[in-house]
Amino acid sequence: MSPKITTELLKQLRQVMKSPKYVQEPVQAYIVPSGDAHQSEYIAPCDCRRAFISGFDGSAGTAIVTEQHAAMWTDGRYFLQAAHQMDNNWTLMKMGLKDTPTQEDWLVSVLPEGSKVGVDPFIIPADQWKRMSKALRSAGHDLVPVKENLIDTIWTDCPQRPCKPLITLDLSYTGVSWRDKIVALRSKMAERKVLWFVVTALDEVAWLFNLRGSDVEYNPVFFAYAVIGMNTIRLFIDGDRMTDPAVREHLQLDSTLEPEFKIQVMPYGSILSELQAVGASLSPKDKVWLSDKASYALTEAIPKAYRYLTPYTPICIAKAVKNASETEGMRRAHIKDAVALCELFNWLEKEVPKGTVTEIIAADKAEEFRSQQKDFVELSFATISSTGPNGAIIHYKPVPETNRTLSVNEIYLLDSGAQYKDGTTDVTRTMHFGTPSAYEKECFTYVLKGHIAVSAAIFPNGTKGHLLDSFARSALWDCGLDYLHGTGHGVGSFLNVHEGPCGISYKTFADEPLEAGMIVSDEPGYYEDGSFGIRIENVVLVIPAETKYNFKNRGSLTFEPLTLVPIQTKMIDVNLLTQKECNWVNDYHQKCREVIGGELERQGRHEALQWLIRETEPLSRVQ
Amino acid sequence: MSPKITTELLKQLRQVMKSPKYVQEPVQAYIVPSGDAHQSEYIAPCDCRRAFISGFDGSAGTAIVTEQHAAMWTDGRYFLQAAHQMDNNWTLMKMGLKDTPTQEDWLVSVLPEGSKVGVDPFIIPADQWKRMSKALRSAGHDLVPVKENLIDTIWTDCPQRPCKPLITLDLSYTGVSWRDKIVALRSKMAERKVLWFVVTALDEVAWLFNLRGSDVEYNPVFFAYAVIGMNTIRLFIDGDRMTDPAVREHLQLDSTLEPEFKIQVMPYGSILSELQAVGASLSPKDKVWLSDKASYALTEAIPKAYRYLTPYTPICIAKAVKNASETEGMRRAHIKDAVALCELFNWLEKEVPKGTVTEIIAADKAEEFRSQQKDFVELSFATISSTGPNGAIIHYKPVPETNRTLSVNEIYLLDSGAQYKDGTTDVTRTMHFGTPSAYEKECFTYVLKGHIAVSAAIFPNGTKGHLLDSFARSALWDCGLDYLHGTGHGVGSFLNVHEGPCGISYKTFADEPLEAGMIVSDEPGYYEDGSFGIRIENVVLVIPAETKYNFKNRGSLTFEPLTLVPIQTKMIDVNLLTQKECNWVNDYHQKCREVIGGELERQGRHEALQWLIRETEPLSRVQ
Repeated sequence: MSPKITTELLKQLRQVMKSPKYVQEPVQAYIVPSGDAHQSEYIAPCDCRRAFISGFDGSAGTAIVTEQHAAMWTDGRYFLQAAHQMDNNWTLMKMGLKDTPTQEDWLVSVLPEGSKVGVDPFIIPADQWKRMSKALRSAGHDLVPVKENLIDTIWTDCPQRPCKPLITLDLSYTGVSWRDKIVALRSKMAERKVLWFVVTALDEVAWLFNLRGSDVEYNPVFFAYAVIGMNTIRLFIDGDRMTDPAVREHLQLDSTLEPEFKIQVMPYGSILSELQAVGASLSPKDKVWLSDKASYALTEAIPKAYRYLTPYTPICIAKAVKNASETEGMRRAHIKDAVALCELFNWLEKEVPKGTVTEIIAADKAEEFRSQQKDFVELSFATISSTGPNGAIIHYKPVPETNRTLSVNEIYLLDSGAQYKDGTTDVTRTMHFGTPSAYEKECFTYVLKGHIAVSAAIFPNGTKGHLLDSFARSALWDCGLDYLHGTGHGVGSFLNVHEGPCGISYKTFADEPLEAGMIVSDEPGYYEDGSFGIRIENVVLVIPAETKYNFKNRGSLTFEPLTLVPIQTKMIDVNLLTQKECNWVNDYHQKCREVIGGELERQGRHEALQWLIRETEPLSRVQ
Repeated sequence: MSPKITTELLKQLRQVMKSPKYVQEPVQAYIVPSGDAHQSEYIAPCDCRRAFISGFDGSAGTAIVTEQHAAMWTDGRYFLQAAHQMDNNWTLMKMGLKDTPTQEDWLVSVLPEGSKVGVDPFIIPADQWKRMSKALRSAGHDLVPVKENLIDTIWTDCPQRPCKPLITLDLSYTGVSWRDKIVALRSKMAERKVLWFVVTALDEVAWLFNLRGSDVEYNPVFFAYAVIGMNTIRLFIDGDRMTDPAVREHLQLDSTLEPEFKIQVMPYGSILSELQAVGASLSPKDKVWLSDKASYALTEAIPKAYRYLTPYTPICIAKAVKNASETEGMRRAHIKDAVALCELFNWLEKEVPKGTVTEIIAADKAEEFRSQQKDFVELSFATISSTGPNGAIIHYKPVPETNRTLSVNEIYLLDSGAQYKDGTTDVTRTMHFGTPSAYEKECFTYVLKGHIAVSAAIFPNGTKGHLLDSFARSALWDCGLDYLHGTGHGVGSFLNVHEGPCGISYKTFADEPLEAGMIVSDEPGYYEDGSFGIRIENVVLVIPAETKYNFKNRGSLTFEPLTLVPIQTKMIDVNLLTQKECNWVNDYHQKCREVIGGELERQGRHEALQWLIRETEPLSRVQ
């Protein structure tokens, strides 16, 4: 992977930063955040402005360009990748390390007195604007909204915004109709005495209306906003998607409905002016509910006194707690996904020794097996298929320049998942097709101990996920090892593979307490730069636990793995496991045999079934 | 303990809340915070306004009185105590429980439209003012500063503000002279381009000048403020304390000094006007550094544009990392403290069966043994001497009405500590002088497992204490048990027994990363309302750890117990311990024998030595 040469682009950007055509006054710095106007993590090609200007295309990162400098902030998952993809014009700012300055501190340290810092107000979330604006102001600078996106002005071959057909989901998938979701939302609004709710996140629009799309790769969402009043529903969406009869029927656009369920369809681009009209129509004490991560532009459309901002919207919270139909769908999706992976690993076991399987071939093969399963839609993220040193690049995606051949001498890490109409999967397995070294087994076993510590953890109702993060690290810490990423993220139900408001991370973020029905990943890892990467990831469902004393009826929770794919026992140093951990592995493998074995049988996949049975032989510890 | 009858007092308070003599406009609610003008946790009798108005005298709590209601917010340590001490006029708001409203939400729910909420601006920290003021304003109410403290107006027999002599500490105790501390502080100020630093916390004034006092019980501090400029030092302090020749010499008040080290002594009450004068003298870009917990009154004295507010001051952070002289002092203090406790427990073992030892007698005896030790000054907090059900009242203090007799049938919990000139101690032991039940042993053993999990934890440099909190709970959680308090707090060096900026808690607070030299407590517990309380507390020093792989030279940390007092093996169900945990207990007891045994020998305390040897017999597990 050679870095993108950005000298000319940066020169152009620095010119438009001073051009009266685009800015009222010259800006001395320009911020290029990662997201789109919906603060999405995964974005459409037309929104990949930070990748365009810098070359770094990981899922998280913020670029800041000044007259003299260009700097990129990203987190531990991407340190190596960013260093590879960016040329010498760029300084990498490693977030999470002690000496790395914040964006604000860095700006203050490099800017001349009284500088203006520009940013697209549609792209920056209101909470970030506020924090950054305050910090800059207190140092004598100004954060200013630049209406026209300056990257777009120099991006001559920028792709069009996608506008693909929609998928309607019936009750058997969603469990709750969109009408009932609107009713529940309005009751939350009434509780908080709020008149309007603005839906800005793409997955929240999709969830609310039981619709899916494919405007953004891997995330089954579509570009839209919604504004919900106590008696009105406005959906801002472009294209001829609303002429599709299935969609019209699903949304009952042509039915005689009670007026409060009549959906008004409006152009996507009219959201700002419509919201400004709402803002202008308000009486004292009226409130409009927005996420505090909504864009600065939309937030400003509502006068400050009328705003009701929360870190998580009621849709975000309702969406996180899966109902019975969604949970059953997730189970089905994970069974199908495990079938595909058993096929893949069986195939790899035979093919790798021949020296013909590259990372890309393995990833394609994984997709092929998945696509054979019922209701398969697409992958849920770019497959991380990495062998040897590539495994240490935490969010690696194989490209021809980096593509290594799998061998019997290197560890292979596969982090992959799919969107099925009934659910979203995300699973990581780390394997060796020859004989792992004692050190590799040692590291793998510590990671496994951490995985089990989270998966088997019992904790009282009301516990936040971040309190479980250290459990995943304890075995690694004891030996002086660690990993620079969180341990888990929320997972959507045929929706985004990363979703809030819960997660398991050492980063103190305002996560909501875990609740039965929430679904998160459990994925500790260990990475040795230049050598190998190890990660063991299951998607797990939060379920009630039974304990001896039950927290004085406060109740307790634990996790049930939805992912049922063998964990390679060859990589385990069984003598580093406690008896309890050893039993966990054996019970888990027994369940893989029963559930996935049954499905492999039904699908007539006998060779993969034999592989599964071989891979799930019980471990036993030397006493 | 019978509750304080507050009907008449609340009537009087509600009158002055409307009286034009004290308030410009009537206030519909009045907030009585816990602290004093220095946001101290422990306060002088003249500052115990919340206890005066409500009867509840725990160390944490905020009272709010409206025309119709009186409500008290406190945390899990104090639920039982507050319920006992307050009459029916008061509603207890149990912080940390899911359904408990915040003060702001509650106010909004009970106040009539457009209400005014009053508070003493010297008592409320600026950050709390800001949060509360914003929440109230957004609901149409106003937070207003009430200059005269309304509790003081009805508190006819309010005691005088104390003004006791000072103790000077020489280099052998402090390791660094006050001049060098000023130099270090000024260099931190220069780094942040700050011209003035305002010292508002009492322990920070004491630490900076290497002085101690006794104005507040248990905390060796004195009422004072300091304002440090790049060339000036102003100390605001009352009384004839500055006429003491030892103090004058210590501060070099009569020496010919470089002007930048000349201390100007000013009256305590002149801080506001002096700070307003500083505020008025500033040029653009000048900055004044204050804690964001400084009072609203002092913060407002500096115009907003000139303020530099941080959650922790550079003094707070420097004070937390103990130097070699302080660490050695803390070690000495803990050895003396352990000697006193060995004497006490030996005495209790003989006396308790006679049925003549009450909680108060036991507490007094503990103080007597401590006071026999060199450089003993006073206790570091009110001794928690509690037996049976009293043990479940987490911050219980025995009074004649509640005083139980220790017996061979109940668990006894002693949480106590002292101030010695060389250090501060804080230790909890839970004992049974007869035969504990299987259930009591089971609970004790889970608490011990949690204690060990924290004490033996190894973690990378830069880890914040809150990431260790769940380690202390894991064994309890597995059985459906938990405790409603944090696991540890910073401990001062002959200073406050609770100090920032580090700690170990499930509450997400902005703790600073743990560093070698910091000192914290490790004190998980378990409480069964109406039956018993268990807590095992050591004070531990953060030290570098040796690990197999050393976090790629990032380095790692662990804890070394400074407290060396036997943990009662009779209470341990040894079969619930792992071999590693069992070894930890045996190693710990071996160290108690060596270090404390040696000191008992030197002090000729032979009977206590025999007790120590009996109590530190190695455990062994049935395999």
